[in-house]
Amino acid sequence: MMYEFDAAAVKDRCVEWIRGFFRENGPGCNAIVGISGGKDSSVTAALCCEALGRERVIGVLMPCGVQSDIDMARLLVGHLGIRSFEINIKDAVEGLKSALPFDPSVQTGINIPPRIRMTTLYAVGQSFNGRVANTCNLSEDWVGYSTRYGDAAGDFSPLAHLTVTEVRAIGRVLGLPAVLVDKVPSDGLCGKTDEDNLGFTYAELDRYIREGVEPPAGKKERIDRLHAANLFKLRLMPSFDSGMAEMI
Amino acid sequence: MMYEFDAAAVKDRCVEWIRGFFRENGPGCNAIVGISGGKDSSVTAALCCEALGRERVIGVLMPCGVQSDIDMARLLVGHLGIRSFEINIKDAVEGLKSALPFDPSVQTGINIPPRIRMTTLYAVGQSFNGRVANTCNLSEDWVGYSTRYGDAAGDFSPLAHLTVTEVRAIGRVLGLPAVLVDKVPSDGLCGKTDEDNLGFTYAELDRYIREGVEPPAGKKERIDRLHAANLFKLRLMPSFDSGMAEMI
Repeated sequence: MMYEFDAAAVKDRCVEWIRGFFRENGPGCNAIVGISGGKDSSVTAALCCEALGRERVIGVLMPCGVQSDIDMARLLVGHLGIRSFEINIKDAVEGLKSALPFDPSVQTGINIPPRIRMTTLYAVGQSFNGRVANTCNLSEDWVGYSTRYGDAAGDFSPLAHLTVTEVRAIGRVLGLPAVLVDKVPSDGLCGKTDEDNLGFTYAELDRYIREGVEPPAGKKERIDRLHAANLFKLRLMPSFDSGMAEMI
Repeated sequence: MMYEFDAAAVKDRCVEWIRGFFRENGPGCNAIVGISGGKDSSVTAALCCEALGRERVIGVLMPCGVQSDIDMARLLVGHLGIRSFEINIKDAVEGLKSALPFDPSVQTGINIPPRIRMTTLYAVGQSFNGRVANTCNLSEDWVGYSTRYGDAAGDFSPLAHLTVTEVRAIGRVLGLPAVLVDKVPSDGLCGKTDEDNLGFTYAELDRYIREGVEPPAGKKERIDRLHAANLFKLRLMPSFDSGMAEMI
């Protein structure tokens, strides 16, 4: 039996929550959304448009050199009718890589662009009175599929407690183009899909999270292991407690 | 009456805490410390040396073009006898700035280098099996004097609950060169000292925090205002609670 998910109602509550966040943390500020052309950034941008009005949403396209699917990002921007910037991060990424006095590991190379993108989003935010949206969803966060202080960063997170399956359902309620909502998830960092990298499908993961349905042997253990190993990403940085009192 | 601060005892407990952090979160890993040549990075690196042994500490010097006081950073590296890299972030910073399709505000320009430094530290960390030290102290954190996802980032924070005054006392206990421990604090980003930027002294702030001694009129209000406005930097990113249950 499928659990109940009322996409329209959750969408409405999320829009209300975004409004409340801006009321308390930046009245009149703009929402800054990095637009990859995937479902998460599309849904986040659309939710912000509904919450704040499209004139208060700025999309930021951040290819690293040539991005083969950048037309998807442009499609979203056109569909929503939001202001946008296209900022190529290649020079910054290459500028850093070429300054490293060692050969960076493959994983090192993969994690540089998301952090340069975070830096870029905050540069836009600071110049245009913005608050940066985090676009991670629950399924990704569950297994730590994000770069700490990179795409895991942001000022507010509308999708952090929604699975991939639920984000898609909300995307349909929002009337987003199917080609964006149903796009095969990929971090765009290494040429592989998320599901290739993870070794299980989001459908399997989402049913496990929401319904407790165990994925096939091997995959369950893999999910549980990734979850445990990545929980630190969702917590505050550990700090030494000096034991000294604060008097104010 | 001065409050009691036993620098030697707190130093010992902090060293023990760093050992515990690595035991639980990265046995055998190296501590990656960005070295500016100021007291915070000096004390952090020295604490890590005492906790892990100097062969497990990697200092990272990150000038942006020419750094006039880089000799202080080199002095620290030599004093501790740790491995170090010197990585100039100028090309990355300029690569990003020149890609922006707008004139960045002054504050925007100021916040880019700390985020590129964070990206650099994690590149070192990922290539050399590291955990990145955060070097912020309580006084800075109290008034939000840091760049979110820049120098405010890291994997573990030894100084977050120690004031500037206390960090200096620990630096003396550690036997660090006085020229480093007593260096006038500056973020090195805009040519001014921290105290110029803040509008009050760390001595005033620290007595306020630890003894409740109110700074002169105007300064108290400024501290209180900065504290309230920057508390969000110490908290988890707000996220929309979908209300959906997680079954595992």
